[in-house]
Formats: sequence, C-alpha cells, structure tokens
Amino acid sequence: METSAAVATRTFADRLAAAVVDRRSQLVVGLDPRLDLLPLELRGDAHLGREAAANAFSRFCRGLVDAVCPYVVAVKPQAAFFEALGADGMRAFEDVCEYARTAGLLVIVDGKRGDIGSTARAYAAAYLERREGGAPLADALTVNSYLGRDSLEPFVAECRRSGTGIFCLVKTSNSGSTDVQDLTLSDGSVVWQQVARMVCELGEGLVGDCGLSSVGAVVGATFPRAVTEARRLLPQSVLLLPGVGAQGATPADVARAFTSGPASALVTVSRSVIYAFRVDGADWRSAAAAEAARLRDEVWAASGW
Amino acid sequence: METSAAVATRTFADRLAAAVVDRRSQLVVGLDPRLDLLPLELRGDAHLGREAAANAFSRFCRGLVDAVCPYVVAVKPQAAFFEALGADGMRAFEDVCEYARTAGLLVIVDGKRGDIGSTARAYAAAYLERREGGAPLADALTVNSYLGRDSLEPFVAECRRSGTGIFCLVKTSNSGSTDVQDLTLSDGSVVWQQVARMVCELGEGLVGDCGLSSVGAVVGATFPRAVTEARRLLPQSVLLLPGVGAQGATPADVARAFTSGPASALVTVSRSVIYAFRVDGADWRSAAAAEAARLRDEVWAASGW
Repeated sequence: METSAAVATRTFADRLAAAVVDRRSQLVVGLDPRLDLLPLELRGDAHLGREAAANAFSRFCRGLVDAVCPYVVAVKPQAAFFEALGADGMRAFEDVCEYARTAGLLVIVDGKRGDIGSTARAYAAAYLERREGGAPLADALTVNSYLGRDSLEPFVAECRRSGTGIFCLVKTSNSGSTDVQDLTLSDGSVVWQQVARMVCELGEGLVGDCGLSSVGAVVGATFPRAVTEARRLLPQSVLLLPGVGAQGATPADVARAFTSGPASALVTVSRSVIYAFRVDGADWRSAAAAEAARLRDEVWAASGW
Repeated sequence: METSAAVATRTFADRLAAAVVDRRSQLVVGLDPRLDLLPLELRGDAHLGREAAANAFSRFCRGLVDAVCPYVVAVKPQAAFFEALGADGMRAFEDVCEYARTAGLLVIVDGKRGDIGSTARAYAAAYLERREGGAPLADALTVNSYLGRDSLEPFVAECRRSGTGIFCLVKTSNSGSTDVQDLTLSDGSVVWQQVARMVCELGEGLVGDCGLSSVGAVVGATFPRAVTEARRLLPQSVLLLPGVGAQGATPADVARAFTSGPASALVTVSRSVIYAFRVDGADWRSAAAAEAARLRDEVWAASGW
C-alpha cells in the first residue's frame, strides 16, 4: 500500500476524460451474456455444462469487445450473468475484463455491490485493488447506496489508492425505482435527491484535474427530469445513464446530463447493441459494431460537444 | 421447471421452522474468512497466491461447519471474502456451501444482491435455482431493497419454484444506516419502515404452513427499537439480526423479535465466533464451538421459547 500510494496515481475521472475526448465517445456497451440469446455458432455445446457455457460467454464478449472497440469508451460486464455459471463463470468474467483492458477500453464492472466495514473492503479489494503488481480487475464498479456513507467510504479509499472509480446507485431506470427512491421526505425532496447529496459530498475529495470526481452516480435515462436534476445536484460527478435502447429512452432524453463537460456523462446500452443481430439477422459482430457506431454519433451530437 | 413445479416444494420458512425446533437453535454463524485473521496452521502458504488462499478459506470454513454444527441452524457464507480471491475464491465458496448443506445445515448466502429485470433473474439463478437435478447453491440469499419491488420479484418467483428464501435489507446494523434508511418521510415515518411495508406485501404470497413467509428481512440488532418496530411491521417475516457480538448488541436486545414464533428471528454472529481463538488462545475449532454453544443457549433463553 505504501509503495503504490507514494506513486502519483491518475484518477479514474482523469483517465476517463482523456479517453472520451480521444475517442469522441461517451458510449459504454454492457456485456450481458445470456445463453438463450447467444449467436447460434457460439451456442454449440454450451448447453453441455457450466464450463462450456462459460467458454461461450467468453468468446461472445471478446468478439463484442473487438467489434465495438472503435466506438466506445468503456465496456460494462454485468457480474450477475457470469456468477450464474459459478466459478467457471468467474473465470470467464476475469478473462473478459482483462481482454477489454488490453484492447484499450475502460472496464466498468456492474456489480451493484454494497456492504459494511470489512465486507465493503473485501468487495473493494475484489474489483478495484491492484492485483499482484498489475492493474485492478476493473476501472470502476457500480455500488448500492442504501447502506449509507460509511458503507461507501471503503470503496472511495480504494479508488484513491488505485486510481479507480465507483458509480453509486442514485435513481435507477426501472419503473419500480419509485417504490423507495421516490418516497417524499419531510422537507419536500425525495429519497434519491438526498442520496445524490450524500454521493456529491463523498466525491468532493476525489475530483481530478479534469474537474470531475471519480465518485459517479447511476441515473436512469428513463427519467429525463431526474437526469437534469441529478446534473444540478452532482455538478462534478460522472453520470452513468442506463435505459437508452431496449428500455425506451433516447440520447436526446439525456442531452442535459453533459453540461459539466464531454465526459460528465456516459450512456450505457446493452441489449440493443449486443443482440442487434437478432433483429436484422446480420453477423453478430457487424450488427453490434453498426449499432454502437450509430449510437456513439447520436450521443455525441446530443451532448453538444 | 415443469417437473420441479409439479412436485410440492416445501417452503424455506417451513424447512427453517422445523430445523429451529429440532435443533433448539436460532443461531446463524457467518463465515467471513480473512487471510490476516486465519489460524496460523492454515495460513501456511496461503500468501503464495489465490489458489492457496482459497484452499485455506475452504479448510477454515469446513472446520467451522464441523465445529458449530451442533449449535446452529444455518451458516451464512459472506460472498465478498470469497469474491476477493476471484474464480479460485468462488470455487471455495461453492465447496463450502455444499459442505454445510451435506452437514445438515441451512445455507444463507450473504451477497446483498439486487438488480433489475433479467439481471435480477440471473442473480436468482446463481444462488437459488436448482442445479442440474440437485439442490440450489443456497437455501436463502440476502438482497438489497433500494431498487424497489420489481427488482425483488424475480427472486420471489425463484423462491417459490425452488423452496428457497430471501432476506431483504430493511434496516442495517451500521451507524451509517441512518443516512438513507432513517430519512423522515412526509407522513412522519422513515424510509426503512416503508421498505418494511413493501417487503411485508411481497412476502404475503410465500407464507408456509408454519405461518412464516420465506421473504425475510435484515434488521440490525444494534437498533433494538427498530427490531421491535420491524417485528410489528413484518409479523410473518423471519428477521435476520446481525450486530450481536463484535458490533455490540446482546441477545437480550433482540428478545422481542421472537414474538411471531421460535423461528421468527435468527441471530447471526460472525467474528465473535469464528475468530474466538484469537481472544482465548484455544484451538480454533474448540473456541468457535464453545462460543456458538454459549450464544445458542443465550439466544434461546432470550427468545422465551
């Protein structure tokens, strides 16, 4: 720890900001491999067991990384789909993260982890700590904010050490997000706005040279007014915006998220890109590349940069 | 799916209720293996790499299962500590879950998972779905409630199919739980109480013959008044109560959680049992067994059954 802290570490936000400008992309493609949706050529004998299925996941995600690489700034592997294959799935997960990093992409692990004390430190170690002299498994991790500030601090401490980031759940894209996140508080605000204030404070100590914090926030593009309001409450946070595509939102819905700079928001799409071949029948790689290219341009134009 | 649904599946709550009476225990021991705290004899060459460390975790947890088995109704492996060792850790995790089940204990995986739609279904499949004709990895899983009711429903659907359960985070044991969970709502109640109402409704369709639901709730024993209030709001839910022991609460603090029946609450302890040897210098297995036996009796007496 001492050695790595002594070396000046570039923050996640600074690395992201450079990559966004360099690649002219604010697009993140989610890697959500599902056995029942894989291209036929990969399904092969994937039904024969977990190891075969995990290999198919790995080949699918590697192929997607190659295909979308020119058009995205990051990929977002979804831990759940790999976990469903147990230890074999985790091996594939590690392989995919490594492959994407080697391809020059940032890796945002979608794990929505969250716990207290030493358990939060273990999650931070699992995803954000440097591994035996090398890079961490992920550049950033999504985390759940329900347990409060002290449950997020171990992640922030690790972000500072390893130059990684977190995206805290603030307002999620599902319709049921209203159940808890939209409850009205005694001061007239709603729960997620208070969570946004907490995340904002938490991120103040991790603002990079680019003016953005490595403590970001997840805000559903399916709620455009919430996106605008989150931008106001979190002026220095990178907003990670799911909900464009299969969930119904459009790049225009999130244009106002970008007022804090070209890298101040990221649009994340999964199904509409990675399973694009199921709609138009094209080769799965070409279909994903075409859809990613289209969305990259559309988001960049909407962002006004 | 069709075949298993056709066979009448005993609910998790019914299996738990039978086990509690049979074993006269409402104690759950958390399996939180940490390399820096392992018994010296297991640390051996665990520093040599992930595979060696994972093997040490597995040996430690198997030894703990043997030691505490007569005194507990379930063990609660903490996913984070295993995840920190990557795929090797997940292999050990699966091994430990399997070992505990074979020993006749219920397995409550502490993963605090939560996501939306098909991702929630993938988490449910990972932990609660029957595996190739056999049992699920876990009998129950802790889940995070922040994303709302539609994020929990895929778990409930799987619980119904496979006879498993979930414990939804309602009021956690950490001091920072006040940040979000204790925010005052416009009607004068607080956030966690509203979450409790949501969890109560969610569990109504999964009440077993014993009168308890397989949709339980996590409530920190460190907040005794919250425990009493949660019992009132969730009359049919099993309350999983962390915070006794290292976090400072006592069995007497949670006595009122048991008014819905002997299995209506479970006290979960980790560090004070599994690392008991570090305090009194005894053999680690004997120290864990002695502390588990003592707590089992103390909790049973406090429960009034």
